[in-house]
Amino acid sequence: MAVNLVAPERLAAVPGARWAIAEAAIKKPGRADLALLILPDTATVAGVFTQNAFAAAPVQIARRHMQQAPRALLINSGNANAGTGRQGEQDAQACCATVAGELGLKAEQVLPFSTGVIGQTLPIDRMTSAIQGMAESAAKDGWLDAAQAIMTTDTVAKGASRTVDIGNGEQIVMTGIAKGSGMICPNMATMLGFIATDAAIRRSDLQQALALANQASFNSITIDGDTSTNDACMLCATGAGAALDAGQAGWPAFVGALTELARELACAIVRDGEGATRFIELAVSGAASVDEARAVGFTVAHSPLVKTACFAGDPNWGRILAAVGRAPIADLSIDGVSIALDDVAIVADGQPRADYVEANAAKVMARPEFTIHIGLGRGSAQARIWTSDLSYEYVRINAEYRS
Amino acid sequence: MAVNLVAPERLAAVPGARWAIAEAAIKKPGRADLALLILPDTATVAGVFTQNAFAAAPVQIARRHMQQAPRALLINSGNANAGTGRQGEQDAQACCATVAGELGLKAEQVLPFSTGVIGQTLPIDRMTSAIQGMAESAAKDGWLDAAQAIMTTDTVAKGASRTVDIGNGEQIVMTGIAKGSGMICPNMATMLGFIATDAAIRRSDLQQALALANQASFNSITIDGDTSTNDACMLCATGAGAALDAGQAGWPAFVGALTELARELACAIVRDGEGATRFIELAVSGAASVDEARAVGFTVAHSPLVKTACFAGDPNWGRILAAVGRAPIADLSIDGVSIALDDVAIVADGQPRADYVEANAAKVMARPEFTIHIGLGRGSAQARIWTSDLSYEYVRINAEYRS
Repeated sequence: MAVNLVAPERLAAVPGARWAIAEAAIKKPGRADLALLILPDTATVAGVFTQNAFAAAPVQIARRHMQQAPRALLINSGNANAGTGRQGEQDAQACCATVAGELGLKAEQVLPFSTGVIGQTLPIDRMTSAIQGMAESAAKDGWLDAAQAIMTTDTVAKGASRTVDIGNGEQIVMTGIAKGSGMICPNMATMLGFIATDAAIRRSDLQQALALANQASFNSITIDGDTSTNDACMLCATGAGAALDAGQAGWPAFVGALTELARELACAIVRDGEGATRFIELAVSGAASVDEARAVGFTVAHSPLVKTACFAGDPNWGRILAAVGRAPIADLSIDGVSIALDDVAIVADGQPRADYVEANAAKVMARPEFTIHIGLGRGSAQARIWTSDLSYEYVRINAEYRS
Repeated sequence: MAVNLVAPERLAAVPGARWAIAEAAIKKPGRADLALLILPDTATVAGVFTQNAFAAAPVQIARRHMQQAPRALLINSGNANAGTGRQGEQDAQACCATVAGELGLKAEQVLPFSTGVIGQTLPIDRMTSAIQGMAESAAKDGWLDAAQAIMTTDTVAKGASRTVDIGNGEQIVMTGIAKGSGMICPNMATMLGFIATDAAIRRSDLQQALALANQASFNSITIDGDTSTNDACMLCATGAGAALDAGQAGWPAFVGALTELARELACAIVRDGEGATRFIELAVSGAASVDEARAVGFTVAHSPLVKTACFAGDPNWGRILAAVGRAPIADLSIDGVSIALDDVAIVADGQPRADYVEANAAKVMARPEFTIHIGLGRGSAQARIWTSDLSYEYVRINAEYRS
């Protein structure tokens, strides 16, 4: 039921980055469920991780290993290795050690990522067996295979590429893949994103660029408000291409393209949201701060009543108004509030507009994607948040997924 | 689909308090949709109101009129008079004035309450007509009629009575009614509660007792997290019975009975929650503060993934763990966390228990009501939160309710 989303036909290779995939029958046999990204010695790596206090074992280890010089990223689907205690840590470490043995690295140079069901231990013997030999098959054009291998309940593989002019006649390439069908997939934790560029970028600049892009993309989407234990987004600069730093004239173009690519991946996750029939943008303006605009956007995006109204295509704006009113904002006055659906104005200065015609708003909500505009009349800050609706299918997926 | 809930067969009259009902065809004809509570001159009234920044017109007026000596409460169902701007305020004032004219009061002595669809103006002419003559039919035993008149999408009328020994051989009586089938009913805003006792209690003591009872009852339930624009709970002491104050030996018995009655009404709302098939208690212990325990309980209670797992009867404890991990608690460590379903221990000291057998947990979750115990291992504070599951029926009610 993905909304206006098709899988990419091809993804651009990123010089310096190679992918391999393998089958370890982690959840079930018959599909690749391991993906390995191999980076050259020139690479730098940045990452952002879940804020969930109970981060899964692989997330904790990846965070620690980021302090070294990462040269390989191993991702498995089918099992999140979360809530697995000490055994989970040992298993994730064993995966890192096996990859390191294959590639002649230290285990601390390998970052592990897992996505799938929470609370079950990994089939570690099958996994370490499958890892052996993966390096041999690694290829520059393995991005699409990797995008498929990391899927869980995703219905569409997610990836995108960009080429960026960074000045002086130099170009860099950038490709990213992501998985996720909800902030948590049914029974499965995780949104994962992996982006690489061939530019040579120092670690601190790379982290700054990722933080900026992430805030306006992955950190601005929600399916169900359930922040997972395994969320991670990684940005790798292989160093095979042109050098770039934050002081260069080409830097804003790089950050802009990165943000756009990350947003495309993030919105692909929402379009493939569990049971989604609508792709909804919340555009909040007139806020006193960006944090405030985001808080209002997320409160509306998380409201089950707004989400079911979107599913029904019912322009029930009272639910939007009520959700804005319960947002965690001090001294919010209704007098400055405006609400519109695409170009149909409904509320202005806190009053229902005399010229509002419900049939016009119903036409907007019948569209597969639309924007809910919310003005707060308190300042000039704004933010955009993307979400999906709440359908029967969402309940079915999450109630029936585990046997 | 109410869970273990039947309407009360009778409710005890409260000396001094009289109810009248009437039909104004506010949403549709054929049922009583107005209820009027008339209080004697000896009465004191306490109230708690929604924290939604966009409180409905009647809530704003009731808050202001509370500063006077309220003598009458008018409740209408079928229309929330919320998001209605200046017209909404005028209409609510007109209702108060009409009641005041009938009873020989000032308009400021009448408190208005509304529940129903948001964003539509009241049919004020039909309402003021219906109000005329209501006072004549007011009766001491009108509690059950009133409980029915204030229903919206409730499937079961909600009410309860208590008799309390307050020492010195004296007894007081206490009856309450409530409506609500979600923090917001479909398209309709509101949880309302009206409780009266015949005791004579000064206003400040009464307000303190209500605040305590409310925190452990109405403020501890959630269906969908959508705090409404119209929530209100009122406590009236008619003064027809024994005098009571906060310094008296009988005071704890009074507050205890009030809390118990309020909790019964609050839990009745959850049992009649939209689409509910399960009544779930979150018992959070080992917290550093009550606020912390409540925050964890609400985060789990709002998780769509936990709620769908409850609907499925699936002991998917990873979803509970993930929700606890994203609760807004600083420095939460998994090492102290324990999770149990009724008497089936699942996680201890942050580790899955070796003796856990999933079939036992599945038996618990097959029950229509059960408790999810969550230990945080950080302190001695605790809290209980009550909620319902997320079912197909919830989506149907909220997607199909409005034509």
